[in-house]
Amino acid sequence: MNTPSSLEALIEALRCLPGVGPKSAQRMAYHLLQNDRAGAGRLADAMQRALVALRHCQRCNTLTEAEICSRCLSNRRDASQLCVVETPIDMNMMEQTHAYSGLYYVLMGRVSPLDGIGPGELHLDRLLARASDGVVREVIIATNFTNEGEATAHYLSEMLKSRGVSVSRIARGVPVGGELEYVDAGTLAQAFRERRPFAR
Amino acid sequence: MNTPSSLEALIEALRCLPGVGPKSAQRMAYHLLQNDRAGAGRLADAMQRALVALRHCQRCNTLTEAEICSRCLSNRRDASQLCVVETPIDMNMMEQTHAYSGLYYVLMGRVSPLDGIGPGELHLDRLLARASDGVVREVIIATNFTNEGEATAHYLSEMLKSRGVSVSRIARGVPVGGELEYVDAGTLAQAFRERRPFAR
Repeated sequence: MNTPSSLEALIEALRCLPGVGPKSAQRMAYHLLQNDRAGAGRLADAMQRALVALRHCQRCNTLTEAEICSRCLSNRRDASQLCVVETPIDMNMMEQTHAYSGLYYVLMGRVSPLDGIGPGELHLDRLLARASDGVVREVIIATNFTNEGEATAHYLSEMLKSRGVSVSRIARGVPVGGELEYVDAGTLAQAFRERRPFAR
Repeated sequence: MNTPSSLEALIEALRCLPGVGPKSAQRMAYHLLQNDRAGAGRLADAMQRALVALRHCQRCNTLTEAEICSRCLSNRRDASQLCVVETPIDMNMMEQTHAYSGLYYVLMGRVSPLDGIGPGELHLDRLLARASDGVVREVIIATNFTNEGEATAHYLSEMLKSRGVSVSRIARGVPVGGELEYVDAGTLAQAFRERRPFAR
């Protein structure tokens, strides 16, 4: 091949992006070099700046530029509730509901034995310390309803309950606007088992 | 939102990549910062190095680190044939066929009035000078068979023929291994119109 080495290095480096294989990496590299050199320069800068500036919040473990993130420092949040999510994206999703005003703990992952991620790799001792600070009254587990997310939720609830912390799990069921005809049987079975009495 | 500014800047900057919208940019940024900081560092470096090192070959217009690329300098290529392609990726595709040993000219685009790209924006005067060097005997147009590619091919052939340059176009037709049942009617009509006598 006659591909220059700096171009080959860029194509190879682009493959660190999730979902980008050799073909897309090639297309991205040529697109940037042909049509958007300014954008490529900004991207390289932004990436280096983010790598230097961002670290984990000492309280909630999300990515932040400060020692403790602004949400954890806010006095408008209810510090007695602690919601555990897998990723900062999940935390943003929860925030967009405007249904929750407590604090968060971001696991930055999930228990996934197949990927070699056990409870130790997630540093759950930090969550335990956070939940045992004397202010938190309820830990709400909002990990995904995948196999790994459910296993993580189960492990966390056992760990927290054994320390006397009150633990809950967000509800499973038929999605709002969902039609029974198009909901999978597993979800429907759970929705049936976890049915709730009508409020009077 | 409580997203740190360096993280927001990275998410925004990632959107210069083709096919990456706000959701994927967010997912990419968190993935890199959580799981692959080394890869992100390498990517930022590779991008800055490529932006500095790569320029256009003075003869064929492809991306290269030298004044003139190694393919144009090779004396094992047939300098009497010049194949015109839209992008360096198309050139690589042609090379992989091992069916062509001439030289190339890379347009780095196509005539596309809707995107504001006319013949002037493609710097076709450089191609004309290249094709009129006295050594080139045949220009083979291998732009895509899209509307824009066909318009580009038509424009190029008119321009080159008016200067007395011999011009050809790669063949259209049913793909090798293709079944008539699954070929679209337009392709089949072209294949019929452009049928060739069997070699004796």
